[in-house]
Amino acid sequence: MTNANSILGVYLSDSLDLDATYGEALREGASDVVLRHPHEIDNPADVRFAICWLPDENAFEAYPNLELAMSIGAGVDALLAHPGLSNAVQIARVRDPHQADLMAGFAAHEVLHHERDFATLESNAVKAHWQPLPMRAPASATVAVLGHGTMGRAVVEAVAALGFSVRVACRSQPQAPVEGVTYLSGESAVMDAADGANYLINVLPLTASTQSVLNKNLFATLASGAWLVQIGRGEHLVEDDLVQAIKRGDLAGASLDVFREEPLPEDHPFWQHDCLRITPHIASDSLPEVVASQVIDTARALRDGQPLAMGVDRSRGY
Amino acid sequence: MTNANSILGVYLSDSLDLDATYGEALREGASDVVLRHPHEIDNPADVRFAICWLPDENAFEAYPNLELAMSIGAGVDALLAHPGLSNAVQIARVRDPHQADLMAGFAAHEVLHHERDFATLESNAVKAHWQPLPMRAPASATVAVLGHGTMGRAVVEAVAALGFSVRVACRSQPQAPVEGVTYLSGESAVMDAADGANYLINVLPLTASTQSVLNKNLFATLASGAWLVQIGRGEHLVEDDLVQAIKRGDLAGASLDVFREEPLPEDHPFWQHDCLRITPHIASDSLPEVVASQVIDTARALRDGQPLAMGVDRSRGY
Repeated sequence: MTNANSILGVYLSDSLDLDATYGEALREGASDVVLRHPHEIDNPADVRFAICWLPDENAFEAYPNLELAMSIGAGVDALLAHPGLSNAVQIARVRDPHQADLMAGFAAHEVLHHERDFATLESNAVKAHWQPLPMRAPASATVAVLGHGTMGRAVVEAVAALGFSVRVACRSQPQAPVEGVTYLSGESAVMDAADGANYLINVLPLTASTQSVLNKNLFATLASGAWLVQIGRGEHLVEDDLVQAIKRGDLAGASLDVFREEPLPEDHPFWQHDCLRITPHIASDSLPEVVASQVIDTARALRDGQPLAMGVDRSRGY
Repeated sequence: MTNANSILGVYLSDSLDLDATYGEALREGASDVVLRHPHEIDNPADVRFAICWLPDENAFEAYPNLELAMSIGAGVDALLAHPGLSNAVQIARVRDPHQADLMAGFAAHEVLHHERDFATLESNAVKAHWQPLPMRAPASATVAVLGHGTMGRAVVEAVAALGFSVRVACRSQPQAPVEGVTYLSGESAVMDAADGANYLINVLPLTASTQSVLNKNLFATLASGAWLVQIGRGEHLVEDDLVQAIKRGDLAGASLDVFREEPLPEDHPFWQHDCLRITPHIASDSLPEVVASQVIDTARALRDGQPLAMGVDRSRGY
C-alpha cells in the first residue's frame, strides 16, 4: 500500500461506520497503520488485520492473510464465536480505563437511584410535595458484583467508595484488593456473591459458562426485593426468569442496558414494565482516541512480531 | 434523678420528637445517661446537657446548670448562632460516617444523573425509543467540592472513584489526600476550585464567611452549563443569583436539597423550575444507633470531666 513499513487493516462492521468514528483519530495517530473500508482495498491479500464490530458471517472470507481480528469494544464473544474466523487468527480487544469509569458511573447511578428511591422523590417534587423518605446506612446494603475484569474492578471501587458492602465473584483473588471488599472465586463464586445480596451488578464476559447465568436460581438466592443491574451481555439473562422473579418478589426490578436483541424491539414487553429501567446499551462506550491508540499499538506489535498487549486468550474467552 | 452516677439531659426541639427517633437506642445503649422531654423534668437544675434540633429561642432558659448543647446533626450553625446559649456552654455534634456515605451517594447520583442525561434516557424509555446518547470520559469533567469535613471527604472519595477530575476547597491541605485530587486552601480556594468546573458540590459548614457563598460571582466562574449540587445549608445560596445564572447559561440547573425556608413553601417558584431538582433535605440523615452512641459517649465524658471528642470549636464554627 503506502510503504514497506506500513501495515494494512480493514474495517469490518455491518452496523457501524467505523471509519466515521475512529478514522480521524487513527490518521492523526499514525501514518504507518492504514485502515480502509472493504470497497477501498485493491488487493485483499495485503490486509493483515481487521477492526471489528459485529462482523457478518462472511466478513473475513476475502482476506487470506489475516493475522488479527480486533474488537473495538471490551467484549470479544462475537469474535470468539464467529464461524468464519480460524483459530490461527489472533483476537484482541480494546481496554479503556475511561470506558470502565463510565460503566462504574452507570452502575453506581442505578444502585443509588433504587436505594434512595429517586423515582418517588421526583414524583413528589412534581407535586411540590415535601416528604422525606426513610434511608439506611449504605454499609447495611450488600452489592454483589459478578465479574472482575477492567469493568468489574472499576464498578467495585465505585460502589465501595459509596459505602456499600461489596462482594465480588472473580476468577482469582486480586493482587490489589479494595479494603473491606469480599472476593469470591471458584465454582460457586457467583451464587456465593449473590447470596442475600440487595443489588446484583453483572459485568461478566459472555462465555459458554456464563451464558444465561442470570436465571431463576440466582435470583432466588438474592435478598427479597433485590435490584439487578444488567450491564454485561444480553445473553447472560433469561428474560422469562427475570419477569417471574419480579412477580415473586425476589427482585423489585432491574436496570437493563443490554439485550439478546438490540435495539430492543419496540414491541418487546420489557418497555412496558414499570419495574424495569431500560437504557439503549449506553452504560459505557470506548473513546475514539483510546481505541485509535490501542489499534495503532496493536497493529505495530503485529507488524514487528511482538506480543499483543491487548490480545485475548481464546481458551479463557476474554 | 436515678442514681449518683447518672447524668440528665433534655431533648430540645420544636420540629422533631427526638425521643421517638432516638429514645429507644439511647435506653438500650445506657442506663446512666438519662434523656427526658422538658415536661418530664422535675428539677431543671439537674439538667446538665441538651440534645438539640433547631431549639427555639427560649429553649435553654429553664436550665441554669446546662454545660453542653449537642446537635443531632453535623451542622451546628443553629446552636452557634442561638441567642440563648451562653459561651460557657460547650457545643458538640454527631459525626456519623454512614451519614457521610449517604451524602456522598446523593451527590454522586445527582452528578451522574446530569452527566449521563438520565432524564432524556427515561423519557425515551417511556416511548420505547432506543436512542444512545453521546458521552464523555468522566476524567474530562471537573467536579469542584466546597468543604472538606467528614461530608466533604466522603464526597471527594466517591466522585474521584467514579473517574471525575476533582478539585476541593478546604481549610488546610489534608494529611491523607486522595490520589489525583487537587486540594486548594487559602482565601481564594472556593473561587479557584470553581474556576471552569462542570459540577459544583457544596458541603461547606454555615459560618459568617460562607453565608451566601453560592452567588453570581461564583456561578460566573464555572464552565458554561455547569450543574450545582447544593447539600450544605439553605443560607449558602443566593436564590435570585441561581435563577439568573440559569437564565444566563452559567448553570444548566441545580440539585437543591436544602433551603432558606424548610419545608420549601408550596408556592416557592423553585418547585416549578424545570432545571431544578428539588429534594426534601434528604441528602443524608444520621442513624439513631450512631447518634445514641455518640450522645452517650459525650454525656459520659462531660460527667467524668473528660474532653469531648465530638466538641465543636466555637471560634472556627464547626
